[in-house]
Parts: sequence; structure tokens; C-alpha cells
Amino acid sequence: MTASLSSLFTPCLVLDEAVMQRNIDTVADRAGRLGVTLRPHFKTAKCIEVAKRQLHRNARGLTVSTLREAQFCLDHGVVDLFYAVELAPSKTEAICRLIGKGADLKCLVDSPDAAEAIAARAGDTTVPLLISMDMDGYRCGIPGNGAGLKRLANYIHGRANLRFSGLMAYSGASYGLDSAAEKGRLLEDHLGAALAARSTLGIECPTLSIGSTPAFMNAERLLGATEVRAGIYVFQDLFQAGRGHCGVSDIALSVLTRVISVQPERNRFFVDAGGLAMSKDRSTRGYGFDAGYGALCDAGSGELIDDLVIREVHQEHGVVSSRSGKPVDFSGVTIDRMYRVLPNHSDMTAAAFDKYFVIDGQGDVVDVWPRANGWEPES
Amino acid sequence: MTASLSSLFTPCLVLDEAVMQRNIDTVADRAGRLGVTLRPHFKTAKCIEVAKRQLHRNARGLTVSTLREAQFCLDHGVVDLFYAVELAPSKTEAICRLIGKGADLKCLVDSPDAAEAIAARAGDTTVPLLISMDMDGYRCGIPGNGAGLKRLANYIHGRANLRFSGLMAYSGASYGLDSAAEKGRLLEDHLGAALAARSTLGIECPTLSIGSTPAFMNAERLLGATEVRAGIYVFQDLFQAGRGHCGVSDIALSVLTRVISVQPERNRFFVDAGGLAMSKDRSTRGYGFDAGYGALCDAGSGELIDDLVIREVHQEHGVVSSRSGKPVDFSGVTIDRMYRVLPNHSDMTAAAFDKYFVIDGQGDVVDVWPRANGWEPES
Repeated sequence: MTASLSSLFTPCLVLDEAVMQRNIDTVADRAGRLGVTLRPHFKTAKCIEVAKRQLHRNARGLTVSTLREAQFCLDHGVVDLFYAVELAPSKTEAICRLIGKGADLKCLVDSPDAAEAIAARAGDTTVPLLISMDMDGYRCGIPGNGAGLKRLANYIHGRANLRFSGLMAYSGASYGLDSAAEKGRLLEDHLGAALAARSTLGIECPTLSIGSTPAFMNAERLLGATEVRAGIYVFQDLFQAGRGHCGVSDIALSVLTRVISVQPERNRFFVDAGGLAMSKDRSTRGYGFDAGYGALCDAGSGELIDDLVIREVHQEHGVVSSRSGKPVDFSGVTIDRMYRVLPNHSDMTAAAFDKYFVIDGQGDVVDVWPRANGWEPES
Repeated sequence: MTASLSSLFTPCLVLDEAVMQRNIDTVADRAGRLGVTLRPHFKTAKCIEVAKRQLHRNARGLTVSTLREAQFCLDHGVVDLFYAVELAPSKTEAICRLIGKGADLKCLVDSPDAAEAIAARAGDTTVPLLISMDMDGYRCGIPGNGAGLKRLANYIHGRANLRFSGLMAYSGASYGLDSAAEKGRLLEDHLGAALAARSTLGIECPTLSIGSTPAFMNAERLLGATEVRAGIYVFQDLFQAGRGHCGVSDIALSVLTRVISVQPERNRFFVDAGGLAMSKDRSTRGYGFDAGYGALCDAGSGELIDDLVIREVHQEHGVVSSRSGKPVDFSGVTIDRMYRVLPNHSDMTAAAFDKYFVIDGQGDVVDVWPRANGWEPES
């Protein structure tokens, strides 16, 4: 198929394949240089066509954030999966069904209570478990430096229907650091701590999984890590660009929208991408690069239009005005004109849509790729 | 069907049917007393079972916010529809297809440019158009007190394939007012201005549609309005309760979630309802009733647990702690325990899900109702 952007119903998601591929290559090349393999997050794109391109470049398997994603990947032939959200034991039966269908689905725990409850429900199925370590207080996990970790690993190791599969660390605090050197050093420090923790376990630890895109992109020495989890790099977004993790021209995802009302007397106009289409993510708030709910680009060229952002949203209305408060240039702002809007946070913005319209370098629509939204796997 | 909440895969949406019905009755009774009919917003629930219960009680037709909703309603036999988002003219063909299938689908414009472009694309189909009036600078619309309104109405009236169907006013500024009396007076004032504008048109004006739930709930004299648009009342939410538009016990919608990690040493625990499940809506921010990303209730009783909120979210992690910062009572906070979380903004939270699990007064699941998400109608 080939179609023009103007034939699309708005709002919809537009994905620039060449920009995405460049992002995939950049990160794959870096992983190659550092001698680690990638386990990309499926949660950013939730799209098998994107995942295939990642798996083609220095990646082993995928990280999933829902069991719906796991099932979708399995249905498309990807079996090496890590469900990197601490497992609620009542989901064990669903896990076992996916394993029964052929998934090598590693799960995550951070407490003996969880491991015990999972074992009690797993029956004859062996569930592979990683242990989530709390490195910096950013999220879940058992402290990486205490006796509890060794006890939990050995508990899992000793249960017939559990398999101890390794350790997971997440350097989420990297998002709060400003300098590239600090971000990289954080990951190296966490890796060092994780390696030290691993050496105390007294049992085999096949996987040491580390993560956060910005930390990885700035680290230099990752020896000992068996895999790196990274996700947002595939699409990037305004937050990542604002924080210096990429350029604005590296953002592969945008929302196509049309003008539905023009009010020069109020220095604003309205587009049909509102709070549902852009999401209410305001991660750029409080920064010099605050972009409201998204930054406008020319629909044809994809070039950013200086100072024009969605400042407010209602459910199906985006209120466009200048970020600076200066008068908007209304020449060319006509009813039905299309724009592309760059998102604050690609994962959140993409979540409202069920597919991507994929464009080539000329801005023509060349493909449509579905997404795997929702949580529950089909039983 | 009857099932227990504990059989549900989390996160998922739970809808308390009795609470919802009470909300529907309250608003329908009020409309009856005031002598106006309702045109409920479909966008809050996006669910035909909810809409049927509204249509059964003092409502004429529905207000839709997307053409996907319009198609879904039409497919379920509801033909009297008002698409209350200013129409991008390039959607005219989709509108005409829905009209061709039997929808009495009224659309909205606020400029001659839009009306002209719609007429140019409508062909042999007659498109009914309301005019959106800007009453208070809250959203789109042509000024309700100028000559432009009369010109636009008469332009529509004079085009063979357009039909002038009335005026729409939205008292969105009511959300910024604190006292009930002010909110009600705002709507009465806007109605007065709209009636004055109507009297200058010189042509028949079949519909005068007014709106905003809080304004309607506090107005006393609505003579002359042919219909009231209101939506959020059907589910209510923490923002509405905080602003005094309802009580917390009137909130019919919640997200069922389970504990996935417990960290007493950090005074927090984690649930499997994160940023995608709750949405990133922070409309309670800056108020005394700020509830983070949602307030926790006991899953069985539905009773609010004092001081316990989702303070932060990651994509699939909700970080629960006390709103006050005081130590959380961890007795009973165990891995896999279920909670129900009340949302800040029901429309936004519901949008991530494709169905409701409907519960009765005993908390048993008695039905599953689908939602109509997305934008594009099937062609």
C-alpha cells in the first residue's frame, strides 16, 4: 500500500520508519561496542514489526510489561521473554499457560512470600524467576546488599517447580541526574554492586539484567552484564530530547491531527488531538523544554514549528498556542490543516491507539502495524 | 454469569451498577424538575449498556465525541446523535456514510470556512449543523453576541445540503468557580445570552443545547434550553467529589489492582495499576483533596482507606503510600491483596480499558460490558 497522510482519519499515530531504524541501529551499535546484548522493552511500541527490527540487531528476546504483550509476542514466534514487572502470584496460572504454549517466560519477584505463592500455584510447570534488586530506591526490589537476597535466591533454587534465572537491576535514578557522566557512572556502580551481590549467592546465576536507556547510553564499562533492557530509544520523545538523550530529529513517533477551530482573538487554535490522543503525560513540566501536551510540526516535512505547542487539552480538543505567550502567526492556520505533534512520552501517547501508520522518507504511508494493548492474555 | 472479584485478571475496570444507576436517577430527576431533557455524553462510559440506562431516564439521544462512538451507537440502534466536537471538514465523507446508514447525526461548526468546506464535500447528503458559541473563553466557538453568529446561521440555512439545527453553548468556566450558586448562575447567564443571540437570527433554531455537569447541577431556571449535555455524573470521580459535585460514595468506577511488592522500610508498596491503568491525569493536583493518581479502597467493601493513595506511577507500577507522609499501616498489606482504586478523572482512566466488569451490591461480578475506544469509524 501507499497512501498520503492527507487520506488518514485524525487523530492517528504516525511512525517514521527511517528515524526508528536509525535509533535501533544507534543503540545496537553501542551494545555491540560494549559487548552486551539487548533485551528491548516491548512496552514502548507494543508492535511486533518494531520488535522484529530490534531482534535483527544485537538483541536477544524481549522484555514485556504485560501478559497480553507476552502472548502477542509468542503468537508471533518470539519465545524468549522476560516479564519485568513483579509477578502477582494470582497470575501464575496465566504464566503457566503461556509456558505450556512454548514461551520461555522469565518472571520477577522480590520477596519470599511471592516466590512461595507462585510455587504453590505452578503445579507441574517450572516457572523461571529473576529477583528484582532495589539499587537506588527508584522502584521495587529486595536490597541488593543484604542477606535476604541470598536467602531468596536459594529458596527459589531449592523449589522443584521454580528455577532461579538471575538478577535484575534497574537504574531508574539515572532519570534524575543531569550529566551524561553521572548517568553512565550510576549504571556502572549498580552493575558493580550487582556483580558483588551475585558472587555471594553460592549458586549459578545465568542472567544479570540491567537497565534504563539513558544510563546505558552513557555507560562505558558493562562487563559482566548479560543483557541490557532499554525501550524508549526506539521512538524517543520530547522528554528524552529535552534531557539530552537524543535530538528532536530522532523522535520517530507523532500524532497526526487537524485544525478544527481558529480563534486569533484569543491567540489560539484547536486541533482534534486532545487529552485522549496525546495522553495527560506532563513529564516535560517544570523544565525549560516544557512542551505542554506536545510540540507541533509541519505535517509534510516533519519539521518542528518554533514555539507552537498544545498548551491545554480537553478530551478531544487540543488547544494550540505559543509556548512563550507571544502572538501566534496565524498565516496558514486554516480549518482542516494537518500537523504532526511530537509527544512528551511516547509510551503513554501511543497507548491510546491500536495501530501505527508507517511513513517513508517522503512522508507517504507505506504500512499499517498493529499494537497489542490491554493486560489480560486470551485464555 | 456471576464471578467473584478475586477471579479477575488485574488491572481491570470495576463498575458498581447500583451506584451508577443512582447517579443516573439523580440527574434525570433534576432534569425532570427543571423541565429539560438530557443528551448525555457517551464519551465518559463509551458503553451502550450505560447509555441505554440513561436513555431510559429523561434523555433524548446522545452526545458523542468521536465518530467511532457515533458508529457504535448507531450499530446498537441509537440514531439521535450530536457529535459535539467541531467538525474537521475532511471527516464529512465519514459523516455522510453514517447519515446514509440512518444516523440523525448533528455536527458542530464555529466558522463559515468550516461550513463551506463541509458543504463542498457533502454531495447529496444533507448535514445538520449546530453552531458552537464561545460564552466564556473556555473552548471553541464563535462569539455569541456578534453579527458573525447571525451570518453563519443564515449561511448554513441557505445551503441546500446543510441544515441549520441550532446553537450550542458550553459553560466550561463553571469548573473554575467555587460556590454552587456561582456555577448555577453562570449557566443561567449563558442561557440568557444564548436565548438573546437566538432571537436575533431571524430563522428557526430548533435546538439550544447547553452543558457542563456542575453548572447544570446547580442551576434553577433553564427555561428555553431544549437539551442539557452532561457526562461525568454517570461515574463521577475524585475530582468531582473534591469539587463538591458529588460524594466519594457516588463514585461508581474503580480500577481493581493487586499488590506486587511491599517495602515497609521505604513506607510504600506497589500495585499492578500504573500510569497506563490509572492514566496520567492529575486533575486533583494543587487541591486539598489531591489524591496522587488515585485513592485506595478495600476491594470487598469498596470503602475508602483513609490516607492511602497512588503517589507515583511507572508504566505498570503504582507506588502506594500515605497522602500525608505518615507511616503506612502495613498490617494486611500482603502480596496479591486486591484493592480498588478510585480515579481522578473517570473518562481518562476508563480509556485504557476495553470493558467494564459490572458488580452488584454484594461485590459479585454480574456482567461484562464492552467499550467503544478509538476514533475512526469502520468504513
